[in-house]
Amino acid sequence: MTKRIKAFAPATIANLSCGFDVLGLAVQQPGDEVEVTLNDSGRVTIDAIFGDGGNLPLEATRNTSGVAIIEFLRATHHTTGASVVLHKNLPLGSGMGSSAASAVAAVVAINELLGRPLKKKELLPFVMEAERVACGSAHADNAAPCLLGGLILIRENNPLDIIEIPTPKDLVCVLVHPHVEVKTRDARAVLKPTIALKDGIKQWANTAALVAGMMKNDYDLIGRALVDVIAEPLRADLIPGFWQAKEAALKNGALGCGISGSGPTVFCLCHGRENAIRAGKAIQQVFLSLALASEIFVSEINREGAHITH
Amino acid sequence: MTKRIKAFAPATIANLSCGFDVLGLAVQQPGDEVEVTLNDSGRVTIDAIFGDGGNLPLEATRNTSGVAIIEFLRATHHTTGASVVLHKNLPLGSGMGSSAASAVAAVVAINELLGRPLKKKELLPFVMEAERVACGSAHADNAAPCLLGGLILIRENNPLDIIEIPTPKDLVCVLVHPHVEVKTRDARAVLKPTIALKDGIKQWANTAALVAGMMKNDYDLIGRALVDVIAEPLRADLIPGFWQAKEAALKNGALGCGISGSGPTVFCLCHGRENAIRAGKAIQQVFLSLALASEIFVSEINREGAHITH
Repeated sequence: MTKRIKAFAPATIANLSCGFDVLGLAVQQPGDEVEVTLNDSGRVTIDAIFGDGGNLPLEATRNTSGVAIIEFLRATHHTTGASVVLHKNLPLGSGMGSSAASAVAAVVAINELLGRPLKKKELLPFVMEAERVACGSAHADNAAPCLLGGLILIRENNPLDIIEIPTPKDLVCVLVHPHVEVKTRDARAVLKPTIALKDGIKQWANTAALVAGMMKNDYDLIGRALVDVIAEPLRADLIPGFWQAKEAALKNGALGCGISGSGPTVFCLCHGRENAIRAGKAIQQVFLSLALASEIFVSEINREGAHITH
Repeated sequence: MTKRIKAFAPATIANLSCGFDVLGLAVQQPGDEVEVTLNDSGRVTIDAIFGDGGNLPLEATRNTSGVAIIEFLRATHHTTGASVVLHKNLPLGSGMGSSAASAVAAVVAINELLGRPLKKKELLPFVMEAERVACGSAHADNAAPCLLGGLILIRENNPLDIIEIPTPKDLVCVLVHPHVEVKTRDARAVLKPTIALKDGIKQWANTAALVAGMMKNDYDLIGRALVDVIAEPLRADLIPGFWQAKEAALKNGALGCGISGSGPTVFCLCHGRENAIRAGKAIQQVFLSLALASEIFVSEINREGAHITH
């Protein structure tokens, strides 16, 4: 009998405004699904990719799902072959942690197929290695929340030190993905290697306040702390209508609003679903006024992270 | 009958390593005491100052205790006169929040004398105005914890937004004050107006992690997060033997160790009194090997802040 398992891994909001490069939050939907089947070929292959518009590489060594499985098999001394079918539900280059999600789903599936030799948290290095292949640097800000769920603080990437931050029960996330391309490379290029000390002070005041707001269930404080004086002012120009969209969101129920990852997706955090839907529609309306189509995803926080679906 | 009240206000550790300019923590001891007596002179006078070695101004408009009372009386529309006797137990220019403590004790006393027209938190602006006179800028990082107690995050100074951060039960503070002068002005002058983005990212990762560690009662995390890559590397040279003192503290029971405020006092946070005493002595020993005398203060966290003593 062929062993075959499917796993789901969610979209993630990296940065969360003030938490540039150090915070990431997992949502319930959307997410990627990866089916992995063991075989005796001794090789890892990508058999099919659905939903990527033909843009992702089928070579396992260049695809994050393939890289994560190869690294996992090497580290656990398995010689099995594996074939992968990837269902891309996350838009590529959207700032929703698409590359991490494929890698996470793949490695969760292969770990399950082989009888769970590793704990969930121990899978993270393989995903980070896949991220290195996809993005050029081994960051955990999408990978960790995608795998583990919830809000994750990455205190340090090397050696990895990640901290789970509790979040309020009624916090709801909105992702609005406008159909415009922002290359991670370009989003990185607009950043400057130095920042003003006074801006740095604001940023760490807000990052600390955001963690406090989350742990105190203080929705107002979360809203006040969702401020980014470092990346957002430089990256906003890459997203048409960003400032109007943000203003519309804040007027329509969002506690805070910013750029998800390196964009172009815009995120909000809201108190309750009703506010979230209203804020999402307000953002979409702004994009529409600029003849820009977009999708809205409204979702509670995903506290479980990636999981086996069948 | 003459109305006369005495108030105590504690030393505070501003910055707490990673929380440069945004965090402050109150200790139990030492602290300043201020006696205030109402009179019908219509003026605020400083009648005596003990323990300052004659270094503090007796003019009420130039002394933080006088300024705080003048501002309080003006804001609350009182025309009473007041005379002040100041018992300076905090060494001047030590980085222990000495100027804030005198102002806080003074304003707590006058508020009590006049039947508490204002809540404790509402006294903060008068202390900040006094800090402006003493230091040139209206910062709350000593003033707020001195007044309110505990660990305080100053998210913003203007408009003021302060957040109380819970702290673990067995967290003990050590302050070691070496007899060397560091002028706040010099400690400010060594800072640079810009910082590397990568250092900023480390700083806000650690500030967020420190808040999480405090709220999760995670002593190890508190230790890992007590890292300052911004001010400490530049200010360490102003304190003879700082790096050896820090190393000695970390080897002798300190979770973390850094510069209190702008120095020269060195602080540690420790799990339990025993570790705190050991760490304090280790630091003092290093200073002694450099022929530098010092005092050690070991203290639980002051969760009450300034208070009336009689």
